[in-house]
Amino acid sequence: MEIKVLKDILSANDQIAQENRQLLDSKGVLMINIMSSPGAGKTSLILQTIAGLRGKTRIGVVEGDVSSSIDAERVGREGVPVIQINTGGECHLDANMVRRALNNLPLDDIDLLFIENVGNLICTAEFAIGAHKNAVIGSIPEGDDKPLKYPLMFTIADALLLNKIDLLPYLKFDSVAYEKAVKGLNNKVKIFPVSCTTGQGIDQWLKWLRSQLKPPQK
Amino acid sequence: MEIKVLKDILSANDQIAQENRQLLDSKGVLMINIMSSPGAGKTSLILQTIAGLRGKTRIGVVEGDVSSSIDAERVGREGVPVIQINTGGECHLDANMVRRALNNLPLDDIDLLFIENVGNLICTAEFAIGAHKNAVIGSIPEGDDKPLKYPLMFTIADALLLNKIDLLPYLKFDSVAYEKAVKGLNNKVKIFPVSCTTGQGIDQWLKWLRSQLKPPQK
Repeated sequence: MEIKVLKDILSANDQIAQENRQLLDSKGVLMINIMSSPGAGKTSLILQTIAGLRGKTRIGVVEGDVSSSIDAERVGREGVPVIQINTGGECHLDANMVRRALNNLPLDDIDLLFIENVGNLICTAEFAIGAHKNAVIGSIPEGDDKPLKYPLMFTIADALLLNKIDLLPYLKFDSVAYEKAVKGLNNKVKIFPVSCTTGQGIDQWLKWLRSQLKPPQK
Repeated sequence: MEIKVLKDILSANDQIAQENRQLLDSKGVLMINIMSSPGAGKTSLILQTIAGLRGKTRIGVVEGDVSSSIDAERVGREGVPVIQINTGGECHLDANMVRRALNNLPLDDIDLLFIENVGNLICTAEFAIGAHKNAVIGSIPEGDDKPLKYPLMFTIADALLLNKIDLLPYLKFDSVAYEKAVKGLNNKVKIFPVSCTTGQGIDQWLKWLRSQLKPPQK
């Protein structure tokens, strides 16, 4: 009698994440999972990016929050398609929440889809949603020790935006130690020092984003 | 036949939290659960408090982090008893982790015990550890919309320290809207605007803390 050993069975979440990715690929949509602590600047980065790519790249946004629709309202005023997900207590988005959002977005009219995850530097890193790239936002006022304390998030980042560099004159922050700690966890990550208030450094981020855009796969 | 209906059975975590509380009460130790986003200033607040109460109140500290012992080292240099808990991925402390720390602290020589929880504005609020009071730290750079987005944390706070007020001149932050949102969730919370960098406002916090101290219960 032959005994079947089933290997590599995807979890339900990973299975749905893979289906999300296939749907996005079929439509030529680049999906970016934006993660950070609360208040590091996820929405501000999305707003800067919408402004910077207006007329060039068609953007859609999914806003994930425990509660409220403040962020979706801010983004919606920019005239891009936006869906708010309220997790009602859950500390992260999962693939099924994102699937429901995808089903309610005009994917044929979107080139670049941002998923603004819940503000959480730990749990959001643990759940695949089907994104092509993970963009993590660090923030100068949070301090330079965050990569050592929250290593998983920095390990899975494809892009790391170090935001609020306009506050550097007023705070102690060792940029060299920070970058060294990040590279020790993940030497492939692209680091972008930016200020979403002044716009400093945003051009480099936009250039990287545009280089990642995908044609539809037939 | 009588049918027994068991009500109000505590979860395993809540049971251990209650036992932690009983142990602390028997020793006359006030335990404060300090919670915030990553980098809002939990360790800095503890360091300011140790300095402000030196020679008056005997302090102990438990440092909770996903990874690293950076904070325990900083606190240990002040000569107070400190235990580091590394959760190894878990996004919050639970009652059993704290119990193990209590068993390794000289509780007879401590009046005030700080538990620095993992940096997380969501999950830490959901797990009782046996603390007498919850102290939540908000931070000016995080923005004034946090109470609306993360309501549970603000609902369970006994004290809310609004930290980094030294950065107010450089940031947009509507203190009136913030306080209104907090009070809408929880009108009993005591709010302390502070700067753990300059020491501004710390005196009021120390006064409140001292008013909460407990004699041992025989």
